[in-house]
Amino acid sequence: MRTLHIAGAGMVRFGKFPASVTFEQLACGAARAAMQDAGASRKDIEAVFVGHVFGGPVAGQRVAVELGLGGLPVSNHENYCASGATALREAWLAVAAGLYEVALVIGAEKMTDRIKGGVAPDPSDLDAMQGFIMTAGHALSARRYMADHGATREQIAMVAVKNHEHSQHNPYAHYQNPVSLEQVLAARPVADPLGVLDCSPISDGAAAAVVCSREGLRRLGIVEAKPVVRGIGLVSGSLRTGLHDLNEEDISRRAGEQAYALTGVDPEDIDLVEMHDCFTIAEIVRLEGLGLIPRGEGARWTQDGHTRVGGRLPVNASGGLLSRGHPVGATGMAQVCELYWQLSGRAGGRQVRDARLGLAYCKGGTVSGTDGGSVTTVVVSA
Amino acid sequence: MRTLHIAGAGMVRFGKFPASVTFEQLACGAARAAMQDAGASRKDIEAVFVGHVFGGPVAGQRVAVELGLGGLPVSNHENYCASGATALREAWLAVAAGLYEVALVIGAEKMTDRIKGGVAPDPSDLDAMQGFIMTAGHALSARRYMADHGATREQIAMVAVKNHEHSQHNPYAHYQNPVSLEQVLAARPVADPLGVLDCSPISDGAAAAVVCSREGLRRLGIVEAKPVVRGIGLVSGSLRTGLHDLNEEDISRRAGEQAYALTGVDPEDIDLVEMHDCFTIAEIVRLEGLGLIPRGEGARWTQDGHTRVGGRLPVNASGGLLSRGHPVGATGMAQVCELYWQLSGRAGGRQVRDARLGLAYCKGGTVSGTDGGSVTTVVVSA
Repeated sequence: MRTLHIAGAGMVRFGKFPASVTFEQLACGAARAAMQDAGASRKDIEAVFVGHVFGGPVAGQRVAVELGLGGLPVSNHENYCASGATALREAWLAVAAGLYEVALVIGAEKMTDRIKGGVAPDPSDLDAMQGFIMTAGHALSARRYMADHGATREQIAMVAVKNHEHSQHNPYAHYQNPVSLEQVLAARPVADPLGVLDCSPISDGAAAAVVCSREGLRRLGIVEAKPVVRGIGLVSGSLRTGLHDLNEEDISRRAGEQAYALTGVDPEDIDLVEMHDCFTIAEIVRLEGLGLIPRGEGARWTQDGHTRVGGRLPVNASGGLLSRGHPVGATGMAQVCELYWQLSGRAGGRQVRDARLGLAYCKGGTVSGTDGGSVTTVVVSA
Repeated sequence: MRTLHIAGAGMVRFGKFPASVTFEQLACGAARAAMQDAGASRKDIEAVFVGHVFGGPVAGQRVAVELGLGGLPVSNHENYCASGATALREAWLAVAAGLYEVALVIGAEKMTDRIKGGVAPDPSDLDAMQGFIMTAGHALSARRYMADHGATREQIAMVAVKNHEHSQHNPYAHYQNPVSLEQVLAARPVADPLGVLDCSPISDGAAAAVVCSREGLRRLGIVEAKPVVRGIGLVSGSLRTGLHDLNEEDISRRAGEQAYALTGVDPEDIDLVEMHDCFTIAEIVRLEGLGLIPRGEGARWTQDGHTRVGGRLPVNASGGLLSRGHPVGATGMAQVCELYWQLSGRAGGRQVRDARLGLAYCKGGTVSGTDGGSVTTVVVSA
């Protein structure tokens, strides 16, 4: 299959925007930044792939019109929190199939207009209707993890401390201030043992990339090497309550195996990870699920600083969902922007030294997963 | 690019289902029928592509779980009324890229739970908010067409008569009874000159296909020739009120040109068309936009029987949206099912003789198009 080069990437700063700032404005802001970064003009773009959940029908077409790309092929892709990465995957396949040389991929979400408090479970999610909502599920996951592996509440809280520390250096992050361990532990309880700082915020935002074939690089006049999307795994799965250990993360294991097989990458060689840390504990169990950290050791790795920038396996140098923020459809593309900047040596104060190979992981769906969920694994090399 | 073979297709009958019949049940019904038709078992399917508009987040994953395909790559695709065809397009690209040999594509919609009366315009659609809603736009289109080309109200109404006549022979059609010209003309007015029988109904339904590479056909043990998706065009566009003639159909022209260029097909060679006749007049102006009927002659062609089964260019042998029904996300795949049956010689009483090459057209978006719309053009050969 043909490789997919990232010619440029761009974001708008994540955060809470007033109602006057529209989905389209956020998406266009990120798209224009990516096009500028790639040196791409409107006539260079051949197709537009848009990932979002709450943008409404043909939201991507509205964005394309605003960008002056109104006539192009536009498609909208939804896989809940993995929507942005799913849009990238479709662009990858379109370029790999030889249909396009240069495409624009956008992930965007205006959350704050629609979501008050938290994302409401779907009425078909019977577990959630019994109270097994997202936060409750991750709280049970944390309790089980602590019981099984002797991990402490403090170790889990350190994921939030680390990710907030990282995003001080990320100008696109929703939060750019450090939080202390004491603050995380003392934060308003959400679902015991998790407090509000263990949970990713409701954010608005958008992230985009111009992606292309080798021929596309030539057309854009790009002579330097650019990061390459080696392949993108996609698996779905159901995590039914009571059937097995909540932390078994079978879906992550399969998503990792698919990505490694697809790209020929040895997970040992991965230099940094953008991980879907919608909750502190989720970062830990998913890294273990991917086989990047031995089972039961993720909390200790966090405490020991192995997942910090400068550590053995830096995780969420961007700040992750916890601190960069989590506009659901934008998150997957924000992760890819981060890998692009890191692998280009342009990540400033959060730069991972000698980064050559990165993995970005998104999980979309509900924690109980009676309605199914999906995991994407994007492998990007320098 | 690798070709995409249609190994099997299936539908549930379109119609109005009670609230107890879910989106998932409709989608699974169509998927199981397609898998049975293809002789495909669950283990043969490598990925699932689902097109829908109103199914809600990760609806496709819920369907996959119910089908026993829970672990597979699943993605959801939305392009309003072109969603089903957009899902097929992504499957085509994935197979063309070499990622899969056998995939399942589903278009589905449960409309009647959500849509009362008609589809409400998006609040961002400023034209619609002024009253230029879907029906008003098509009524203006009809008036302009009549004024420009000397067409009669009766000729336009004959599109409905024809399509209802066709779907008498389609066991999957929402309506399976003929309507007379007098009935169409006397039907409750909606937007002058269009009455309710000029408008496609609100329907529930689903349609699906098992698609594959040549290697996939081998795996499924299929030895006979199967219809082939030669290529799928996708264009977007905005149709701004007052800027030009509503019937100019620039978007259809571009969609046609893209499909012909992509597939090397001469439009003269097309034997039958599945056309997005959401309104009677739309069938006429879109056929003209595609260059399949000379501009201004579509109404006369209809009166002369050229677009009937048995005529020069049979259009909507299935009954089309007007009579097969229009569950928006399902429509594109229902068109592809019809082409598959027609090109396999399995269309029963509505069979188009010697059909070798078919085109299916979907248009998604609003009539005013301030929020953009998309057109898909699927070219299928025997």
